[in-house]
Amino acid sequence: MSFKLTEGGVCAAKGFKASGMYCGIKDNPTKKNDIALVVADVMCNAAGVYTSNKVKGAPVIVTKSNLEKSGGKAKAVIVNSKNANTCNADGIEKAQEMCRLTADALGIKPEEVIVASTGVIGQVLPIEPIKKAVPVLADTLSYDGNVAAATAIMTTDTFKKEYAVEFEVGGKTCRLGGMAKGSGMIHPNMATTLNFITTDCAISAELLQKALSEIVKVTYNCLSVDGDQSTNDTCMLMSSGLAGNNEIVSDGEEFNTFKDALYEVMASLTKMLAKDGEGATKLLTCVCSTAPDLDTAIVIAKSVIRSPLVKCAMFGADANWGRILCAIGYAEAEFDINKIDVALESTGGKIDVCKDGHGLDFSEETAAKILAADEITILIDMNSGDTTATAWGCDLTYDYVKINGDYRT
Amino acid sequence: MSFKLTEGGVCAAKGFKASGMYCGIKDNPTKKNDIALVVADVMCNAAGVYTSNKVKGAPVIVTKSNLEKSGGKAKAVIVNSKNANTCNADGIEKAQEMCRLTADALGIKPEEVIVASTGVIGQVLPIEPIKKAVPVLADTLSYDGNVAAATAIMTTDTFKKEYAVEFEVGGKTCRLGGMAKGSGMIHPNMATTLNFITTDCAISAELLQKALSEIVKVTYNCLSVDGDQSTNDTCMLMSSGLAGNNEIVSDGEEFNTFKDALYEVMASLTKMLAKDGEGATKLLTCVCSTAPDLDTAIVIAKSVIRSPLVKCAMFGADANWGRILCAIGYAEAEFDINKIDVALESTGGKIDVCKDGHGLDFSEETAAKILAADEITILIDMNSGDTTATAWGCDLTYDYVKINGDYRT
Repeated sequence: MSFKLTEGGVCAAKGFKASGMYCGIKDNPTKKNDIALVVADVMCNAAGVYTSNKVKGAPVIVTKSNLEKSGGKAKAVIVNSKNANTCNADGIEKAQEMCRLTADALGIKPEEVIVASTGVIGQVLPIEPIKKAVPVLADTLSYDGNVAAATAIMTTDTFKKEYAVEFEVGGKTCRLGGMAKGSGMIHPNMATTLNFITTDCAISAELLQKALSEIVKVTYNCLSVDGDQSTNDTCMLMSSGLAGNNEIVSDGEEFNTFKDALYEVMASLTKMLAKDGEGATKLLTCVCSTAPDLDTAIVIAKSVIRSPLVKCAMFGADANWGRILCAIGYAEAEFDINKIDVALESTGGKIDVCKDGHGLDFSEETAAKILAADEITILIDMNSGDTTATAWGCDLTYDYVKINGDYRT
Repeated sequence: MSFKLTEGGVCAAKGFKASGMYCGIKDNPTKKNDIALVVADVMCNAAGVYTSNKVKGAPVIVTKSNLEKSGGKAKAVIVNSKNANTCNADGIEKAQEMCRLTADALGIKPEEVIVASTGVIGQVLPIEPIKKAVPVLADTLSYDGNVAAATAIMTTDTFKKEYAVEFEVGGKTCRLGGMAKGSGMIHPNMATTLNFITTDCAISAELLQKALSEIVKVTYNCLSVDGDQSTNDTCMLMSSGLAGNNEIVSDGEEFNTFKDALYEVMASLTKMLAKDGEGATKLLTCVCSTAPDLDTAIVIAKSVIRSPLVKCAMFGADANWGRILCAIGYAEAEFDINKIDVALESTGGKIDVCKDGHGLDFSEETAAKILAADEITILIDMNSGDTTATAWGCDLTYDYVKINGDYRT
């Protein structure tokens, strides 16, 4: 299914305003934005998926609790970057304070606020800058504030991640768009880094959560930058229902259209996250096809994408396919390794490197040309069924080591 | 228990000769050794643990099959480096040919030969150089050939790994020693990279295997260099029984002494493998103590040792303990994160950085001094029991990327 792209990111859907600014949590001379606010004109159905790490950021705990209290309704999102507000004795208190400040500035209830933080773990969150910023953020909200917000949630990201599409439900044009941040500590399980998606499509709270959980599994959860699962992973989906369509309340064609749109946006953001993985020079996509089932396809594609040795080989443009086979071999799934075919593809062409689990004679010259591209696809054929899954990642480079050797200081 | 160290590595135990030479598989001008032979004067009990990767090197398959045929007896080990003989259509045939050549040169049966290969996956193994080398290896066997053999199994290793100890069983002096190779694609599960251990202690085949399996779990299997589990992991333990002790045939004090000696040798080799991890500048040791059980302690210590972000922080001497908590949090075990304490230790001192899952105020200056050392211990206290496990690894550096960006070519 193809979708009409549209502008506006998290503000693309009707009824969503945003703002972003520098409040002083980021200690940088260029005063890059470090706090963002997203507010809906009406009360929204809200669905969330969160990290499964036992160390949970205080904002994750507070947001979950808020949505329980509000019965899955929310009107605002407040997010800061540079400090994860995680593993701090006063973390919960500070996250709740962020909700109270936001609620006061907007005249809503604290439990109608979604709060998120991203950045260094274990440093006390300074609340004073946030206290001063929230009223300013509320005053500067606008229907094209998406860029200010999307830049405010960046940490080591080198570019902002936004994506939005239009689609039709019951003759009404709906919009669905979002923003995300990367770019290290990324190996989502159950959820991923920070992602905020909004839509004006009217849809029941139950189906909103169902769609989110289903699509997270095949998009964000198929992303790995370094194998480290973050403590603050949060993916939120809010629906204002302002598109004017009759609310989607059951499975069927309209729900499928909604899920297709959600997949389009989330897969596109996932790709951006992979491409901007810390230190990355190449986007790696691994497509595992003719698999017996979805879980097997996912676990194999992710195993290859996660392998440090595969990532280094791709950085070095070395068609060392033995490392791909090795990573397939230790994936936790049951299958016949002697049916596996592997090919490498890019704008530079396509080359088969392995058939039935054994190496093929191939031109190293052609392979090098293919691997010189900055977007490489690893194609795995299991010859054992008709299911396909895709995983996304990036190469492992000197810059990943550099960034993470001195990130905190 | 403390042991008397002794010289001789794989030849330390009575009745074991070895040799090593350059035969031409390594394509290098310095003609570094690339093939090794270890031969016992008498028929040995042999125990093995192998990779659990679904992609298994042909030598792994052939060795397992040989030991089944011979009823767990072996007299010789033939090993080449630089080529893993894995994922090749003619792999099994070539591995069998290596056994036949060795058996012919020694006048023994092919199924009494253990064969192993390490190096690049998926390149056809050249058999001609091996054909020429095996008779020479047989002619040059000696009781102090251990160094020639230990250097012949090296790939990207920067130093050879040997260790041997003496111990007493029933008033008789026994010896147990071995050699190992690293240094990338190391994240053992069930077994690890190539390890050959010999002893002259008389011990039944059953107890030999029991000791090996038990000690592998808390030594090699607690090692991670990069999270990539090799296709050729093989750990062999051979006993000549020439020490003159009454054969150990049951659990008890003598068996415990044997296991202690085996732990001493295998843990020491494990530390060497970690210290010489590809590109490593620091040995990282993670000790998880006061754990409720061994499996929990192991899974937590390994999770921390595997984390790329922890590894980079250690490379950068940055006491970014939040990454350690994060890696503990995504370890697949059940526990209370709010009971966890973390400290960092080296010859530079010791510092507590986290108590009850929350950060402590600590001197960054002291922490930097501690982390400047080249051997760092991460101490995790679970405060939930009385079990301890140790995992070993290394930092993640520019050189890991460099080595693996152009390893194959």
